[in-house]
Amino acid sequence: MSRTRAFVREMGLRDGLQSIKTIMPTATKLDWISREAACGVGEIEVASFVPAKLLPQMADAAQVVAGALANRALVVAALVPNMKGAQNAIAAGAMKLNYVMSVSESHNMANVRRPVAESLADFGHIVEFCKTLPEGKRPVVAGGLATAFGCTIEGPIREERSRELAAELAALGADEVIVADTVGYGNPAAVRRVFAGVRAEVGNLPVAAHFHDTRGVGLANVVAALDEGVVRFDASLGGLGGCPYAPGASGNIVMEDLVFLLESMGYDTGVDVARLIEVRRFVQASLAEEREQFHGAVARAGLPKNYIHA
Amino acid sequence: MSRTRAFVREMGLRDGLQSIKTIMPTATKLDWISREAACGVGEIEVASFVPAKLLPQMADAAQVVAGALANRALVVAALVPNMKGAQNAIAAGAMKLNYVMSVSESHNMANVRRPVAESLADFGHIVEFCKTLPEGKRPVVAGGLATAFGCTIEGPIREERSRELAAELAALGADEVIVADTVGYGNPAAVRRVFAGVRAEVGNLPVAAHFHDTRGVGLANVVAALDEGVVRFDASLGGLGGCPYAPGASGNIVMEDLVFLLESMGYDTGVDVARLIEVRRFVQASLAEEREQFHGAVARAGLPKNYIHA
Repeated sequence: MSRTRAFVREMGLRDGLQSIKTIMPTATKLDWISREAACGVGEIEVASFVPAKLLPQMADAAQVVAGALANRALVVAALVPNMKGAQNAIAAGAMKLNYVMSVSESHNMANVRRPVAESLADFGHIVEFCKTLPEGKRPVVAGGLATAFGCTIEGPIREERSRELAAELAALGADEVIVADTVGYGNPAAVRRVFAGVRAEVGNLPVAAHFHDTRGVGLANVVAALDEGVVRFDASLGGLGGCPYAPGASGNIVMEDLVFLLESMGYDTGVDVARLIEVRRFVQASLAEEREQFHGAVARAGLPKNYIHA
Repeated sequence: MSRTRAFVREMGLRDGLQSIKTIMPTATKLDWISREAACGVGEIEVASFVPAKLLPQMADAAQVVAGALANRALVVAALVPNMKGAQNAIAAGAMKLNYVMSVSESHNMANVRRPVAESLADFGHIVEFCKTLPEGKRPVVAGGLATAFGCTIEGPIREERSRELAAELAALGADEVIVADTVGYGNPAAVRRVFAGVRAEVGNLPVAAHFHDTRGVGLANVVAALDEGVVRFDASLGGLGGCPYAPGASGNIVMEDLVFLLESMGYDTGVDVARLIEVRRFVQASLAEEREQFHGAVARAGLPKNYIHA
């Protein structure tokens, strides 16, 4: 019996690096991307197209996208918050746009400085713009819903809201919907409800889960999402990154722990977890001053005795 | 609608303390027990009845059991590896015996120096001995199956073996069966299979899960066990303890993260997680030289905004 395929996507170069003080040199970013792609990670969000004055860590976004394209099998994705960002990402050669808007009105206002309705409309314009591009230049457009499980400004978020917004993104022509627990407020029961609702709205559209491990339940949320048929997960190597509101808290779920979990459960990620741990060491060595920002259990404990990569 | 009850049991005074170098004074142990019982934790494994020369941290086991009985609502449990330990624990006043044997033959030989069949027979003798006691002196007897998901000596363990041994423990008169992933080899898919099998064998007997978080999947395993109807979970405050085979690896799943997870999912643990974090700080302060042995996310990140203890 063939195994079910699961897809892991690296967020560390965007979600991780934007959360720490150090600015990683472009060449090191490209080295990281190549090494991780060589482990079998098929998609990497390599940068964010926001103004460099807001995020100096992302000032080299265009060069990183262009350089990352050298990894032939890799889907080179970029976060974009608006049409301007989308056009810049496309000009740089991004193969996938991860558009971000928040389910929480207050968080959307704080993050992208406009109401949710305006973000939705802009998403529609981006999809339309992409349709005008020749096929070989046309990126995959994913619609991301941040703060779907709660928000540091508003607290809990009405769960039905993610379902409604996912339906709108799908209607506007999204190629994928990403549901994100941006600040680690989710739990497996809520994850099941929200993903069941979203999947019911969007038909066969791929639905991805973006969890943070702020309160230790990130991988438990992965298991709950798997129960709802979700097989696309964002993570970052070593859980790099944190939360500006909680010093010492962890960021994205830990890539190597996620791969270990999925493989142990019989999913086929295509990723060699032992090699991934080597790449984590490389990234950690290149960010030696950010020691506190690395998390995860498998890298410390090692793989179990007689563990065989399937 | 009333919430489903879930039961959390503190292992740190046994599984945690036996894994670290420091010897905690008896008075500090009793202070810890009282503070944690006051948070609503209903059962604490306060000690292990093994020879003091093997585990100097447990040399005060009888005094700790006797002192812990001052906490009126608390189930004072003790780990026992054999009849001698059981008799000593009962003499000290233990209300519950957590008998330990391993599913792995090699691990049982290494840990309690006899074959699995002998451990099983001894369990039967302990149950018979307890039946001879007057009701007010008769402890609850739980049969624990260590290394159910794998073993650092043998590697993977045949999953059916836990089911077979659970059936034997039940037939011998166990009041509860505990299935333990002693070295953190489990994953949610295996957890579902093993607990489904064990529960099918033991009828209405309570089945408890004892997970370690060695590779980060401890709470994901909890969610999988909940799916199989398991509502009894062992944990330790701050995940205190480690693994002798993996320096820096975490020990039991983290009590405060477990309570946060269960409450977030709508289970009623009866435990106040905010107070639990205070107790963690107390324990951490009293083991200042064991800083590396504390784990967990909720204590670092804090509770979510507008979080209300149900």
